[in-house]
Amino acid sequence: MGRWEPNAQGRLAQAALELYVERGFDRTTVAEIAARAGLTERTFFRYFTDKREVLFGGSGELEAVLVDTVAAAPASGSPIRMVADALAAAGARIGQRREFSQQRQRAISANVDLQERELIKLAAMATSLADALRRRGIDDPVAGLAAETGVAAFKIAFERWITAAEDEGLERVIRETFDQLAAVTAPTARRRSR
Amino acid sequence: MGRWEPNAQGRLAQAALELYVERGFDRTTVAEIAARAGLTERTFFRYFTDKREVLFGGSGELEAVLVDTVAAAPASGSPIRMVADALAAAGARIGQRREFSQQRQRAISANVDLQERELIKLAAMATSLADALRRRGIDDPVAGLAAETGVAAFKIAFERWITAAEDEGLERVIRETFDQLAAVTAPTARRRSR
Repeated sequence: MGRWEPNAQGRLAQAALELYVERGFDRTTVAEIAARAGLTERTFFRYFTDKREVLFGGSGELEAVLVDTVAAAPASGSPIRMVADALAAAGARIGQRREFSQQRQRAISANVDLQERELIKLAAMATSLADALRRRGIDDPVAGLAAETGVAAFKIAFERWITAAEDEGLERVIRETFDQLAAVTAPTARRRSR
Repeated sequence: MGRWEPNAQGRLAQAALELYVERGFDRTTVAEIAARAGLTERTFFRYFTDKREVLFGGSGELEAVLVDTVAAAPASGSPIRMVADALAAAGARIGQRREFSQQRQRAISANVDLQERELIKLAAMATSLADALRRRGIDDPVAGLAAETGVAAFKIAFERWITAAEDEGLERVIRETFDQLAAVTAPTARRRSR
């Protein structure tokens, strides 16, 4: 009770995800999570403010990575390049824990409230990216478009990464997806009217 | 009571939006909406299943426009072109009611639950578009990317359209945004590594 436990945070997160997938998020209590992890509720609340925090606790940190990467990008880069680099940097972090990401996604997919929360977090990522671009002197519509499109590409990349048979590396998949994005969106510019 | 009222649906929607903006969505009752419109609750429920339906009732119809446009697109067109045409067709419908769209957006912006609902609807639009592309023989990642990116462009276009001083025409703004999208995403393809 209250004493240090080896990797308590990781064990609690793992136990929580297992239970969310097994019984559903709504039907899982903090007491059950702690019991499965062999820890106490008090220990749970030392690491997480609530049940949701297990799933979304890292989002503030990721947003900081995005904003810092755009702030530090060379001025010579294009806005979409800044966005790609920022999301690749975030991807490098998330990419270290593929199994966790897979379980997390299963838990979220099974619950509409959690899906909504996930979408709000992604929208917040796009807003932060657009603001960071504007601080670099990039105006709208370019800032907004680069940010929203970038997050759309990130979603596709993330989906491919967690569903692939093997771990292809999230950062690499994000880079490839941005290359595909350029190819996918290219033709329209040349055919404004038909 | 129960008899036909001229433009009852429009009057109810208008009254609802005014009240959502004035007092907030949560603090508005169906009785109040009906009273403001000079109609009965029973009439309200002839047109809408609940308070939310006023804001999101058209989304099924819009999804049908998207899916039908992709299904009917010439096979020679690129996937992003099919998506642009589909969203422009949806935009042509929404674009007829700019003031309604502006009020609706104000009501949604003031309420987190409604924002989440709006994001879920946009995500569903992207899913439907991607499925429609797959039925046209377009594989992933292109189908998913074109659909998600297209909806991202739509969001940006919609935002520009409702915040502009004058009505620039939603369909036109969508077309222009897709042209900008091609320009914004272009440079990455040529610089895979740095």
